[in-house]
Amino acid sequence: MGNSFKLGICQMQVEDNKKANLKKAREMIAEAAGRGCRLVVLPAMFNCPYRSDTFPDYAEPVPGGETSLMLARSARKEGIYLVGGSIPENDDSGTVYNTCPVFSPAGQLIACHRKLHLFDVDLEAGLSFRESDTLGAGRQVTVFSTSLATMGVAICYDIRFPELARLMALQGAELIVLPGAFNTITGPAHWETLLKARAIDNQVFVVGASPALNPSASYHAWGHSLVVDPWGTVLAAAGQDETILYAEIVPARVKQVRRELPLLRHRRTDLYEVREISAT
Amino acid sequence: MGNSFKLGICQMQVEDNKKANLKKAREMIAEAAGRGCRLVVLPAMFNCPYRSDTFPDYAEPVPGGETSLMLARSARKEGIYLVGGSIPENDDSGTVYNTCPVFSPAGQLIACHRKLHLFDVDLEAGLSFRESDTLGAGRQVTVFSTSLATMGVAICYDIRFPELARLMALQGAELIVLPGAFNTITGPAHWETLLKARAIDNQVFVVGASPALNPSASYHAWGHSLVVDPWGTVLAAAGQDETILYAEIVPARVKQVRRELPLLRHRRTDLYEVREISAT
Repeated sequence: MGNSFKLGICQMQVEDNKKANLKKAREMIAEAAGRGCRLVVLPAMFNCPYRSDTFPDYAEPVPGGETSLMLARSARKEGIYLVGGSIPENDDSGTVYNTCPVFSPAGQLIACHRKLHLFDVDLEAGLSFRESDTLGAGRQVTVFSTSLATMGVAICYDIRFPELARLMALQGAELIVLPGAFNTITGPAHWETLLKARAIDNQVFVVGASPALNPSASYHAWGHSLVVDPWGTVLAAAGQDETILYAEIVPARVKQVRRELPLLRHRRTDLYEVREISAT
Repeated sequence: MGNSFKLGICQMQVEDNKKANLKKAREMIAEAAGRGCRLVVLPAMFNCPYRSDTFPDYAEPVPGGETSLMLARSARKEGIYLVGGSIPENDDSGTVYNTCPVFSPAGQLIACHRKLHLFDVDLEAGLSFRESDTLGAGRQVTVFSTSLATMGVAICYDIRFPELARLMALQGAELIVLPGAFNTITGPAHWETLLKARAIDNQVFVVGASPALNPSASYHAWGHSLVVDPWGTVLAAAGQDETILYAEIVPARVKQVRRELPLLRHRRTDLYEVREISAT
């Protein structure tokens, strides 16, 4: 568990133009780093419009693709940990994933999360989406150590499954980073409650990074990037517009909250268990 | 899954006087039933001050004790399902439990939940409590069918463990009733978020029933009884004072929300599982 550090969330407005998205991301990363952030987080699908049909066109290898190269260079140049939101990744077999690459201050790829839960919904309020039309699903829970804190990464719809956040906490995560793009229906109804509940239940920091609302896009991201501490207190909250959201993270707060209210120890592991099923 | 029905939560102010508490509960139950409620819910420890040292003094058998007898009679007389909040129960061996008895409109005891997670905390904000000084812990998840809906019952601190709400939903609960007595520290920080998150994650109704604040008691209950629907919408919310809170429950809403947003089906049961460990 490290010392206090500052993080920045780049709540950028995503356009239907990969080069423009990469340029904006690079600039916002540099600005956040220039203001002292040691961890910078990009939002879900920051290089690509959130549309099933655009994912294959925008997809690229991770690492090796132009987005990964830009992220690695930015992380190294700025000397920061960089959670690369998510991008469409295509693997050797041609399957496309919604993938979050994480880079160290040396520019190394230290973790890579493929979204586990695909967003296939049909809301009567008027939103339908089928990620499974073009995306494959990941198979791994993602937790990794850094000099700042032990972190878990999940993407967007993944946060709706309390089993996953619990597994990340049990595997040592002190801070869960969630690049997400909730929308203007599910966002006001669920986004803040879910992020706060995962923080309260697991006594971890939760960092939700959304794109800004782009009124001319077909999918209206909710924005409202959020940083919650292990007691459930909101440390920083954005609106719907493009901005960089800053927060000071005190990792020692995890142990303090768990000492006062020993939730993980009070689990009735004689009566129930949450367990990861190993990939075969 | 039944038709729509009205429920009432008796957010009563609890005194250090069992007879007075039973009288008030009986009157509030009758009032709620008189207004058309088919399900009436009492708060946690409605017959007893929430203090570890009073639990053994107030404890009585369930069924058979005077509180159970009053509840059975009230349920039968009013023709309602009655969730008897919770009371200190002593079993044959002398162990005391924090127990919620549930009665049918025929006055039969149809379910009984002993609190699974004991509240042993030491908050720096000034609250310490050790239920385990005088209470034993239950060993069963409690889900039962009624003509209104399939219900699960948990008590207070039990709600902090997402595994339990998930197990209740997987065992068929459409409505989770939570007699609880959060306090003026944890209440504003966590109560509403936790109840809403359990409803959103499991797409069930969640009914939180708290005592009113009693300023002269040593433990200051948060009040704020709450009814949340399976989308996470707050249907009714109380303040901190004594009141009966009413809400209309449409059980069909559970299936509707699960059809629009199929969370339970989208769980990655190939990657993780929550399971109940059978009592030996």
